[in-house]
Amino acid sequence: MLEVGVIGYGYWGPNIVRNFQGLGNVHVAAICDKSSAALRRASSVNHGVKLLDNTADLFSMPDIEAVAVVSPVWTHFEVAKEALERGKHVFVEKPFTRTVAEAEQLIEIAEKNHRKIMVDHTFLFTGAVRKIRQLIDDGTLGTLYYYDSMRVNLGLFQHDVNVVWDLAPHDLSILDYLIRKNPEAIIATGERHLNGLEDIAFITIYFPDNVIAHVNVNWLSPVKVRTTLIGGEKRMLVWNDLEADEKIKIYDKGVQVKSGQGVYDLLVSYRSGDMWAPKVDQCEALRSELSYFVDCINSDQKPFNDGEAGLRVIRMLEAAEISLKAKGKVVHL
Amino acid sequence: MLEVGVIGYGYWGPNIVRNFQGLGNVHVAAICDKSSAALRRASSVNHGVKLLDNTADLFSMPDIEAVAVVSPVWTHFEVAKEALERGKHVFVEKPFTRTVAEAEQLIEIAEKNHRKIMVDHTFLFTGAVRKIRQLIDDGTLGTLYYYDSMRVNLGLFQHDVNVVWDLAPHDLSILDYLIRKNPEAIIATGERHLNGLEDIAFITIYFPDNVIAHVNVNWLSPVKVRTTLIGGEKRMLVWNDLEADEKIKIYDKGVQVKSGQGVYDLLVSYRSGDMWAPKVDQCEALRSELSYFVDCINSDQKPFNDGEAGLRVIRMLEAAEISLKAKGKVVHL
Amino acid sequence: MLEVGVIGYGYWGPNIVRNFQGLGNVHVAAICDKSSAALRRASSVNHGVKLLDNTADLFSMPDIEAVAVVSPVWTHFEVAKEALERGKHVFVEKPFTRTVAEAEQLIEIAEKNHRKIMVDHTFLFTGAVRKIRQLIDDGTLGTLYYYDSMRVNLGLFQHDVNVVWDLAPHDLSILDYLIRKNPEAIIATGERHLNGLEDIAFITIYFPDNVIAHVNVNWLSPVKVRTTLIGGEKRMLVWNDLEADEKIKIYDKGVQVKSGQGVYDLLVSYRSGDMWAPKVDQCEALRSELSYFVDCINSDQKPFNDGEAGLRVIRMLEAAEISLKAKGKVVHL
Amino acid sequence: MLEVGVIGYGYWGPNIVRNFQGLGNVHVAAICDKSSAALRRASSVNHGVKLLDNTADLFSMPDIEAVAVVSPVWTHFEVAKEALERGKHVFVEKPFTRTVAEAEQLIEIAEKNHRKIMVDHTFLFTGAVRKIRQLIDDGTLGTLYYYDSMRVNLGLFQHDVNVVWDLAPHDLSILDYLIRKNPEAIIATGERHLNGLEDIAFITIYFPDNVIAHVNVNWLSPVKVRTTLIGGEKRMLVWNDLEADEKIKIYDKGVQVKSGQGVYDLLVSYRSGDMWAPKVDQCEALRSELSYFVDCINSDQKPFNDGEAGLRVIRMLEAAEISLKAKGKVVHL
Repeated sequence: MLEVGVIGYGYWGPNIVRNFQGLGNVHVAAICDKSSAALRRASSVNHGVKLLDNTADLFSMPDIEAVAVVSPVWTHFEVAKEALERGKHVFVEKPFTRTVAEAEQLIEIAEKNHRKIMVDHTFLFTGAVRKIRQLIDDGTLGTLYYYDSMRVNLGLFQHDVNVVWDLAPHDLSILDYLIRKNPEAIIATGERHLNGLEDIAFITIYFPDNVIAHVNVNWLSPVKVRTTLIGGEKRMLVWNDLEADEKIKIYDKGVQVKSGQGVYDLLVSYRSGDMWAPKVDQCEALRSELSYFVDCINSDQKPFNDGEAGLRVIRMLEAAEISLKAKGKVVHL
Repeated sequence: MLEVGVIGYGYWGPNIVRNFQGLGNVHVAAICDKSSAALRRASSVNHGVKLLDNTADLFSMPDIEAVAVVSPVWTHFEVAKEALERGKHVFVEKPFTRTVAEAEQLIEIAEKNHRKIMVDHTFLFTGAVRKIRQLIDDGTLGTLYYYDSMRVNLGLFQHDVNVVWDLAPHDLSILDYLIRKNPEAIIATGERHLNGLEDIAFITIYFPDNVIAHVNVNWLSPVKVRTTLIGGEKRMLVWNDLEADEKIKIYDKGVQVKSGQGVYDLLVSYRSGDMWAPKVDQCEALRSELSYFVDCINSDQKPFNDGEAGLRVIRMLEAAEISLKAKGKVVHL
Repeated sequence: MLEVGVIGYGYWGPNIVRNFQGLGNVHVAAICDKSSAALRRASSVNHGVKLLDNTADLFSMPDIEAVAVVSPVWTHFEVAKEALERGKHVFVEKPFTRTVAEAEQLIEIAEKNHRKIMVDHTFLFTGAVRKIRQLIDDGTLGTLYYYDSMRVNLGLFQHDVNVVWDLAPHDLSILDYLIRKNPEAIIATGERHLNGLEDIAFITIYFPDNVIAHVNVNWLSPVKVRTTLIGGEKRMLVWNDLEADEKIKIYDKGVQVKSGQGVYDLLVSYRSGDMWAPKVDQCEALRSELSYFVDCINSDQKPFNDGEAGLRVIRMLEAAEISLKAKGKVVHL
Repeated sequence: MLEVGVIGYGYWGPNIVRNFQGLGNVHVAAICDKSSAALRRASSVNHGVKLLDNTADLFSMPDIEAVAVVSPVWTHFEVAKEALERGKHVFVEKPFTRTVAEAEQLIEIAEKNHRKIMVDHTFLFTGAVRKIRQLIDDGTLGTLYYYDSMRVNLGLFQHDVNVVWDLAPHDLSILDYLIRKNPEAIIATGERHLNGLEDIAFITIYFPDNVIAHVNVNWLSPVKVRTTLIGGEKRMLVWNDLEADEKIKIYDKGVQVKSGQGVYDLLVSYRSGDMWAPKVDQCEALRSELSYFVDCINSDQKPFNDGEAGLRVIRMLEAAEISLKAKGKVVHL
């Protein structure tokens, strides 16, 4: 039975606690939050869990081997740093840190202390993303051409981060997982309309071999959209995460160019065949992710969504932020 | 009865001829195309129309007062120039010209010869765009925040222009018509995968007063999408041009920020009310546009989609092309 | 604080308990179920509630004023009868009883004992049905023409009731609430394919004044559909209960007939205007219903979804069953 | 070159003429219509075709081997009868005739004169219906369970036939083609609201082996729906004819029942796998049908959509009409 502590009991913390408790081989020993209202909420649903209002008390509990850091983004670095230094494994909510420098430092500390970092990129544990990765790995899509995601809805406006830091980490972690190349350049554009933070933004990421990614995030859309187009040489797919049943549709469609003599002889031929929607595993992604976190600790295995994965996302976010502030300046990575 | 000539009888030309013939006050006196196959097709459906294989013969017909230039984009300038110099009014398919310089020159020639230029921005004559313009003009949407359009499908690959010059003119002419401000900067990113021309591209346009526009065009999408989100301070709308009946949906939704003391006191309040889809005029846009062209000639009136409107679109396209070739460089206008 | 008991802790019981507990003015004093597994599940989430395996013990608790009967359909009559005779108000899950005779007897017993019956027609407490009722009451739809509902999905097959008794009570209670006329005749057709119970059925109900209702229920549909069309003289609406946001769409459409001379002079004119989707209250219907149940008890008020309402639904179900067994025989009511 | 005559040039006639003319091996020698306005319309698009205002003149043209009867339904019998007796093959628009007796008589006359009858059941020549037939024939769906179709929209009200005779022939011809069993009983319900003709109707058809069909037709629906569910033992499909690309979706879903001991031991197991949408041929169905008509004449082959097929549909329509008039009486066939 792994003893864990959960730091932060706001929006996401209760989900972490509930899923840890459902695993069977984990005991949530303590929940920590500065807000007494949050602790009251925790007490009403979690019986027998120690409720603390400071991290020091939690880190002093020697039986706790791992902590989940679910506090506000700007506290991630300090909390995770202390946890690692006190010998705890850490599970950190996305985005990993506020800066590349912080992420690099946490990775270093974890290595020195032989502790594990896992960054909460929950989408990588969904049936949909797992299936898409498989379709890429087994060659179904062929050489990747592009990844184009739209993630828009009304609100929720954040107080401390703009729409890029709020919504784009999902897409950046997914495309990092699917494309598996190092980005070469990032261009981000966007605008502020209400509280001084960008509420709409468009990010383009150039990858080697003509792969291009694009992410459209917006807090001011009247409708909720969670749709990603992925184009490959052989097939293309649409992932609509709001569909209850047919989240992924794969189209046996493509374009081929045959060279002729001279520019007007380029023959473009289109192929259009069946569409199919494979059955996608519907289990709760967070549960799978936390189960994997526990397994990594128990078997001393490095998670694939480790500090390095978190760092790669932060590198893109930091570059996007610089580009955005300069109204679309190209940032080379 | 206005006598007109039509130059170019490929994909779009037959629609021009058919709609001119349906107007009642226009006689299509001649159709000109270099291709004998095109002329054969013209002969089978248009009885009694003169079929010519060169523009010189057409321009020599003194009764012809106006010509529609529906030939390939790279010929627009030469054909329209000659037509204007021979005293004909011109209706030019989009995009108006290949360069800003060409567009400026045509406008000058037209003025000198007291002839009219109308650029075929057909979408401005659809019931949907007309309705959106009205919703902006009567204050329904409130101050504009953003225009975000997605225009993607599989093919048709062009031989001479990339996806930006092929698909974006629609959106650029529409947003010019709706936003009515001069763009300040353009950033375009994109990639080539097949025939050396960009097949996917993302364009951001910064306007004064925090208005931002974004256009997503793609020849390599497995599904056809024609959706535009428009956000305003008071209301937001979704225009889905593929819907048969409810093309425009207006959402009585919004966000308001009330300042408090300190950053964490910014209170964001959301408003969410009814949605409605106004009835949209379903008449054929091209017919309305050509009817308006004839009216402008007959009443010696300057069309709103004149050479200047065409030039504004070409200015954006030229800037987008420069930005695209430099992988997203900011181009100030 | 009203003391209540809940009889039956299978699929629906936990929802009843949770919502009672959330009301504030109700105390769930006891839960009763014959299954020890069900009681174990109840014990893990409901602390301090008495768990009983027989109704006699529950009825003996003098403080319990009301009971919710959430046990299998064939037990409703016996359980509710005993409860009423022991002086408890009863809240009975749909369908109220297995026969008209049972329903009539329960109503009589309740009256004699001055106890209240409320039948759990949850849909009547949804924002959608409330809004539709309002649109009828305020004349928006005009004279009603028809009610046509489709309620199909894959499974869940029941062991003891066919698809009519499983799914149609929802529609029958809704149309009873909306149409407010006495049905004149019922015709039900359907077929059995698997376990000897009808898995697909179509019910037509004739009402006075040319109002017609139709209900399509199916356990063997590959897709889930919950769509109802309601046509009125002035307007028509589509209620799609699976839509997250725009559940009700009202169409300003209609048809008018003007008599001319002779049959071929009937002039039919069509009207087609805007569509709008009013904001619909999204609160949990069961909570509203249970709150209303408590209010009715506390203020000694007769609920509108009382035993009579339950009886009207059972009358239609019984007639449908007779018709179905006779392969579509007309059953007059 | 087959010489044909077309009788009736209202809504459907022009499509018949255009498709005949596009075939290459057919010459439309004459068009006949009583209305001078119709003949004027015909003259403007069909050069060199003889225009007649009475059928006698047309039947006197010895070179005409076949006629298409596209006149009003109540004239089908007289016109087709005369045509057959004058030695012409006939292509008759749906519904074939007004009564079973008429249909039987036409079949007899055709046989005696060695002429062919083809009934215009256009849907049988669509890519969608062809694909569904193939999925049944190759065992993909398994044993058929049900066919459930919804065909509703606003108008167009007919003057001489109700919604059953107007819309249901499509579904009846399709289900006859797919199910290939003789119906045992028909029950039709419906209502009249405007011009004395039923504008909404629901038809159930019982077939042997527990196959059931249901058709929902409605002229008073605010939205257009053309959706058919087909359930089989192995797989189920949804055919949405309004979808541009993915008209047919096949679901690898099913239910199996394993007997246990006693009623409560019936174990129902659900299977839910992939969905796929096969590519469907998009060619114009009417063209294929007319081409097949010509082939049948040229090669002296009996069409599968012959008079017998038309008669089977009329038999169902006649029974539905009787049932409808008796408010849902069961009519055995």
